[in-house]
Parts: sequence; C-alpha cells; structure tokens
Amino acid sequence: MTYGVIGTWRMAYEGVGKAYELLKRNGKTGDAVEQLVNTVEDYPYYRSVGYGGLPNEQGNVEMDAAFMDGDHLAIGAVAGIQNVKHAVSVARKLSHEHFNSFRVGDGATQFAKESGFEMGNMLTPEAKRIWQNRLTEVQKKDLNPYDGHDTVGAVTLDVNGSMTAATSTSGLFMKKPGRIGDSPLSGSGFYVDSEIGGATATGLGEDIMKGCLSFEIVRLMGEGKTPQQACDQTVYQFAEKLKRRYGKVGEISLIAMNCKGEWGVATNVEFTFSVGTEKQQPSIFMALPGPKRTTSIKPVTKEWLADYERKLKSPIK
Amino acid sequence: MTYGVIGTWRMAYEGVGKAYELLKRNGKTGDAVEQLVNTVEDYPYYRSVGYGGLPNEQGNVEMDAAFMDGDHLAIGAVAGIQNVKHAVSVARKLSHEHFNSFRVGDGATQFAKESGFEMGNMLTPEAKRIWQNRLTEVQKKDLNPYDGHDTVGAVTLDVNGSMTAATSTSGLFMKKPGRIGDSPLSGSGFYVDSEIGGATATGLGEDIMKGCLSFEIVRLMGEGKTPQQACDQTVYQFAEKLKRRYGKVGEISLIAMNCKGEWGVATNVEFTFSVGTEKQQPSIFMALPGPKRTTSIKPVTKEWLADYERKLKSPIK
Repeated sequence: MTYGVIGTWRMAYEGVGKAYELLKRNGKTGDAVEQLVNTVEDYPYYRSVGYGGLPNEQGNVEMDAAFMDGDHLAIGAVAGIQNVKHAVSVARKLSHEHFNSFRVGDGATQFAKESGFEMGNMLTPEAKRIWQNRLTEVQKKDLNPYDGHDTVGAVTLDVNGSMTAATSTSGLFMKKPGRIGDSPLSGSGFYVDSEIGGATATGLGEDIMKGCLSFEIVRLMGEGKTPQQACDQTVYQFAEKLKRRYGKVGEISLIAMNCKGEWGVATNVEFTFSVGTEKQQPSIFMALPGPKRTTSIKPVTKEWLADYERKLKSPIK
Repeated sequence: MTYGVIGTWRMAYEGVGKAYELLKRNGKTGDAVEQLVNTVEDYPYYRSVGYGGLPNEQGNVEMDAAFMDGDHLAIGAVAGIQNVKHAVSVARKLSHEHFNSFRVGDGATQFAKESGFEMGNMLTPEAKRIWQNRLTEVQKKDLNPYDGHDTVGAVTLDVNGSMTAATSTSGLFMKKPGRIGDSPLSGSGFYVDSEIGGATATGLGEDIMKGCLSFEIVRLMGEGKTPQQACDQTVYQFAEKLKRRYGKVGEISLIAMNCKGEWGVATNVEFTFSVGTEKQQPSIFMALPGPKRTTSIKPVTKEWLADYERKLKSPIK
C-alpha cells in the first residue's frame, strides 16, 4: 500500500510537507489532512483561509469548511462560522454525527464554542486594512467588489488505503453576509471514496456548484479514468457548457488523487498546487489550461516562488 | 413540446394542480415551480415546510430552500433562514445573482427582509405544542429526538422545453440550531438541466448528501436512461453502498422528470408523490421499494387519502 497527499495552491505546501511526513510514518489520512489544513488556517499571510482571511463586506470573517472520510463516506461541514481558529477541525468533529453534521451561521459558531474549540478574532489588522482600502476603491471607482476566493482543499491517502478530503476558506472577499460557496458542499467542493479516490475544488463557488465537479471527477476515476483524465474531462467540458448555457464562467481549478496515489489537476486559470507521494517528494507545480482540453503542468520556477514570497509579505498600504 | 410537473409527497398535490394549470396554459416553468412550492409553504397543516413547519430544538423555525433554472444552470439557495413566508421565492431571487447566490443564517434572513419579501412568525401554536410535547417525551423516555424531514421538492417542464427544480423545508424536527440538510445543496437535494431533465430528493439530508443523488439521476438520464431506470439504479445502489460503508442508511426518496415529460421515482420507504403531465391529469401515487432494485408504484387508495386527511387535521394533544 502506498501513500500520498495533494493540496490546492502554493499555500498548501508547508501543510503538504507535514501531512507527507505523517503519512510516511504510517499516520492516518484524517490526521494528515487536518494537520495540512490547520497549517494553512494558522498562517496569517494567507488572505483566503482561517486567521488573516479577508472579511465579508461588513468586515466580519465568515468561514466555510468540510471534512469527508472516504472509508465511511461520512461528512461534516460548517458554513458562515465565525471566530473559530480551525474551521476544518469543527467539520471533522461533525463528521462523526449521523444527524446535524452540517451546521451554518450562529448555530455552527455555537457548536464550536460548546465543543471547546479554540475561539478568537480571525480578522488581522492587515486583513482589516485591505478591507478598508477595498471599500474606498469600490466606492471611488465603481468596481466589482469581488476578488479572491482561494480555498485550501486537500486529499490524503494513507498506507492502509484510507482516504480523506477536506476544505477550508474565508470565501469570497467582500461577500454579502452569509454567502457560502462550494467548499462546504459535498460533491461540489469535495468528494472522496477510499475505494476510488478524492477531489477538491477552488475558484468561484457559485459556478463550481452548478456542475458538482468533485463528485463527477471521483465518479470518472471509479470508471477507470486516471485522475488526470477525470480532471481534464470534467473541468474543460463543464467550463465550455457553462459558457454556452450561463454566458460566462468563473475561475475553476480541481485537484484529484486516486487510491493508488496517482494524481491529476485541471484548471481554467493559472493555478499552483502542492503534491507529495511515495515516488515524489513534496513539490509545488504550476498548472495552466493546455490545448484540446488538456492541462499543462510544470514545476514552479525559483523566480515565481521568489516573486510570490515578496508579494505575500509586502506591506499593506 | 409537452409539459409536466412532479412533486414529492401527498402534500405537493394542490401545488401540482396549480402548476399543471399554469403549464397547460403555456405558463413558464419557473413560475409553475414557485407557485407549487409556495402553496405547500403556505399550508399550516404541513409540519415540515414553511408556515406550520416544526422548529429546531430551541423552538425556532429555520428553513432551507433552493431554486435551479435548468436553461442556464443558475442556482439560488438559502439555509437556516428565519421568519420568511416563502423561502423558495428568496432562493429564486438569488438565482439571478452570479455572486452571493447561496446565503445562510442571519445573512439570508437579512437579504429577504431588505428585498421586501413577506416576513412573519412561522411558528404556529400547533407546531409549538408539538415541539413542547416532544421535548417532554425526549426527556422522559430518553428517545432519539429526530423525526420527520419531509421536503417539498418539484421539477417542472414547460412547453418551451424549459425546466426548473426547487425545494423547501423546515428541515429535521428538533435539529440543532443551524443544521442544514440536502435540500439547499446542488446535486444532492436537487439538480436540473433543461436539455436532460431534473430530480429532487427528500429524506435524511445527512445521508443524501453522501451520494449527490439528484446529480447522478440527471447524469444517467443524460446517458439515455429513462427517469425510472435512473432513479432505480441510483437510489438502490447507493442505499446498499451506504449500508455497507457507513453501517446504516436513513430514509431516501427521489423523484425525476426528463425533458420529454416522462417521470420516475425510487425510495427505500413508503413514499407518496404527485404528478401531472400532458397525458395524465394530476394524481397522487404511492411508491414502495420493489424486488431487485425496482420501485412498486400504485395510485393511492381512497382509504389511504381519508386516513391521511384525518391524521393531518387531528387535534394536537
């Protein structure tokens, strides 16, 4: 039996590293995915997940997260939760419930508090400044206020053949209060079946949920497609369909891993991701839509990484 | 071009009748499905939808609803919304937004209020009495508090070939605050594509979302299966899978209609539904799981209907 981990974006890299070490030492898939996502949630420079995440239009950080256990198909999810350090850990706890396993708004926050999860203000001074600047910009220039919706999503496989998928996000920057995207929605933001594989999504949730893309990728892997074939077929066909039917399509990127530790990615924008398997040390790759419904995937360059780091830590005006 | 309407449960019947009349007179699919669901939401004797719906464990009526436009794949949804007369109408309005089209909790209620939807207390004195009785029962007898989760879901097809799906529910009786089920979740509680057909679900949402059953039924119809074949294949295979993988499976019932006005149903419990097509006046049927992954469907008997009516209106102790 082998092991593996894949996560969305450059930001998953440090968490992928931790999950990788855990899985290598026969750690459990659920612990690995939670530790991965917690690492991203904790890092204040990531503006779209957990601490440091950008707030809604009223200045409140509202978070969505989910956890799916691929052995039992058990799901836990939260949406519009506030003031909790690790939304994905709340989702994991809810996945043990047969009833009431998806909770939203104040009820979700209340559950986290009562269950003893670490609570606290998730709005950093930097995130607040970005929000204030954006408010001014939008007023002055009559801009579309929405920008940035990078979910951390991950799939892990342990040496016992168990798989897990998880997501966590502060959602669309400047969203309306209570807006939720695909990240906490089974089949759209995530899906995993240990006998087949798993997938998670990032991008414009409103569009991803129109196609149940994570479920469809897992289904295709179940029919024998490789993760890359399943991702390519699902993402590019759906993006074309939505363009034709809805008139436009937002950003859509998906990652997948099957129960053999093989992985795949498809995207309609520039998209980085982080992956580690028994055959491959944790690495960061860049994916771009290629010709004829394929995906072009390359290791990220040193220049790209240096530029990313510089932008990440550049002072907020 | 033909027309048709199908809705979950006996309770959809009066609404199905109204939608049927509208569709027969070349009315639009979206108006038909909204009127259908509004009719159920308004009726105080239905304990699981809209006015008269049973509350959560704290005595508050929290509602979930969704609306999907099968021409454009546009979706609007609300969850954990309170004090709004017609949750499905709020969902329909949200389906016109590209961003912020799914809203939960206070943010959803706020949106309804600001948008001028009719607001009001949804807890009837009868529903309150049932809740109080249940609280006492649960305390005295250490019962599982959860019971009753009948969503109204419907699919409509108009003479222009446009299709819509919608759902509305007050969710699981005695649920924890903020608990949401499958009804507002794309692919799980509902899905529709006018070029193929639509489906909606009712039952234990926590289990339905483990399988994205509405999406899967529509997908199978897209492969050429009849609605009945698609429902049978999806529901019975999934119920067996969940039993094997999760150890148990809750109540699951699905209805479907394709773009030719043909329909199908599958269920793992006794399940009534209401349907009307160009070939068939609005009627109420009873479905039961049959042998070898099939569904046994018969018109409901006069005795069943009389008994239903009697129970519905019997005084609350």
